[in-house]
Amino acid sequence: MSASSGGARSPHAGPRVLALSGGVGGAKLSLGLQSVLGDESLTVVVNTGDDFWHLGLRVCPDLDTTLYTLAGVAEPSQGWGRAQETFSVLAELEHRGFDSWFRLGDRDLALHLERTRRWREGESLTSITAALACAYGVTSRIRPMSDTPISTRVSTDQGVLDFQDYFVRRRCAPRVERLDFVGAASAQLSPELVRELQESPPDLIVICPSNPWLSVDPILAVPGMRAQLRALSVPIVAVSPLVDGRAVKGPTDKLMRELGLTVNHAAIAAHYADFIDGLIVDREDSMISSAVRVAPTLMRDAADREALAREVLAFGAQLREDVSLRCKGGL
Amino acid sequence: MSASSGGARSPHAGPRVLALSGGVGGAKLSLGLQSVLGDESLTVVVNTGDDFWHLGLRVCPDLDTTLYTLAGVAEPSQGWGRAQETFSVLAELEHRGFDSWFRLGDRDLALHLERTRRWREGESLTSITAALACAYGVTSRIRPMSDTPISTRVSTDQGVLDFQDYFVRRRCAPRVERLDFVGAASAQLSPELVRELQESPPDLIVICPSNPWLSVDPILAVPGMRAQLRALSVPIVAVSPLVDGRAVKGPTDKLMRELGLTVNHAAIAAHYADFIDGLIVDREDSMISSAVRVAPTLMRDAADREALAREVLAFGAQLREDVSLRCKGGL
Repeated sequence: MSASSGGARSPHAGPRVLALSGGVGGAKLSLGLQSVLGDESLTVVVNTGDDFWHLGLRVCPDLDTTLYTLAGVAEPSQGWGRAQETFSVLAELEHRGFDSWFRLGDRDLALHLERTRRWREGESLTSITAALACAYGVTSRIRPMSDTPISTRVSTDQGVLDFQDYFVRRRCAPRVERLDFVGAASAQLSPELVRELQESPPDLIVICPSNPWLSVDPILAVPGMRAQLRALSVPIVAVSPLVDGRAVKGPTDKLMRELGLTVNHAAIAAHYADFIDGLIVDREDSMISSAVRVAPTLMRDAADREALAREVLAFGAQLREDVSLRCKGGL
Repeated sequence: MSASSGGARSPHAGPRVLALSGGVGGAKLSLGLQSVLGDESLTVVVNTGDDFWHLGLRVCPDLDTTLYTLAGVAEPSQGWGRAQETFSVLAELEHRGFDSWFRLGDRDLALHLERTRRWREGESLTSITAALACAYGVTSRIRPMSDTPISTRVSTDQGVLDFQDYFVRRRCAPRVERLDFVGAASAQLSPELVRELQESPPDLIVICPSNPWLSVDPILAVPGMRAQLRALSVPIVAVSPLVDGRAVKGPTDKLMRELGLTVNHAAIAAHYADFIDGLIVDREDSMISSAVRVAPTLMRDAADREALAREVLAFGAQLREDVSLRCKGGL
């Protein structure tokens, strides 16, 4: 625990960690961090650029993956959605020819219904998400990157697409030319996040092994997010989403090629260069700088997740002590 | 078939009927009429005063009861909701402590999701309902009484209540003092209904055995509805919802007492006196006027429904021929 974090804290409390996360990969590391840190020491700031309206419901895929994962009720085989899910509603939607391309399970629907009910009554997404986390027994704080709706728009060789159209319906097949985060310019940090950063600042900021362009960039596009996080003067550590030169899940490597980048950790490091203090890359890849720590980043089970969480925490502690790295730009 | 109805029509077509209906009782007679008349001869104008937002979804109980009944997929034991229904979503809502007082089944939810999706995209309720009827294979026309949202508000000894709060949550226990149809004064007839009345006028208008105060009055409260229907100069026949001095289902008799009325057919006739040409009452009750036809109105099965439908049609035909009754006020 960093002496600089200050404030009253229970004697056994470890470091506080703020994680920035997208969906499955980020949720896995968040779960590892939650397991290692124990209750109430983790805050996960989650991408909401993928959120959309579906069948009149507000669906927040990354928030839900994070919630289900941290609650221990995610479907283990895919890392998202609910375990022991049924699809009675979807079967009826299909049977009647209604919209069924986005596969909503029955248990999952219950959450969307409750979120949408609260949304319609004017409650903020931050407040809704906190209430849902409570209902699912999650003690880590799960926070949307903003209460302002922001929509990731994907410009491709098949036209300008809404994110879920690109990601789910077209399975990332279109060639990406550009990404825009519609609404980000006028978005605001949630007051609750700003207050938490002031009153209970983290000792470490972790960028999870999520897609830097599709999952983390939207978070960092919220005006004030980068500045507020940098102003905390705590180490910022990213975990590269690449293993063996490929994304563990999702279109990161395909997207990097389409954006004209080389698919390696150096490109990931370069992408985050002005923001992070250190990068963790998988054991099987080569080091690229002294600010890089090598550790297994493929998370197949709880042992993997927790081992990586410990690596992240240890790297953070090392960086905190390494004064020379406190002036940013260590990569 | 009335010679006065005019217009091109297929040689075998029987009379066109326009029915005004609430929920279960009205849907039963509508089904009887649909069976007797055959395809595309029936239009049901349905009460939407019970409609409400629940969990972010637009729920229209009477429209759905009508749709499910005419589609042959209603739950036979209760007359509303879906047959062979499952409740996976509701179980999860209950398990997590979310809103679960209104019992939405999974199949039923699929319809609410599709309706709400279309509603959010700005489609009118008339258009949505037509699309849903098509999806469920219903060839009769089901029309909401208006595309303008109208909410029945119940003033009771326990305060002013939203309709579903009174009807479902409190099971009609509060003593009713007054009914208001909020939004009715500025509501409009749907252009589709107005066009249908002009281009394909009915030969008979039937007021189903629904609750006159809770189900039919909201329909007649839409500005222009009474005038447009009377202007057609076709017989208007109501079926009394009372059997043996009680409502077959629902709070009609309790409500009548609370409103200071005697619970008999005369009170029903008086309520509709300035609008209808004839009233059908159950065989076991006494006649009250020459404009009253006695016929079994309790509908336990298809034979009952169709027998009553035939009585209604025969009464309509008789009234059409009875010139003396064409000047209104026959009761």
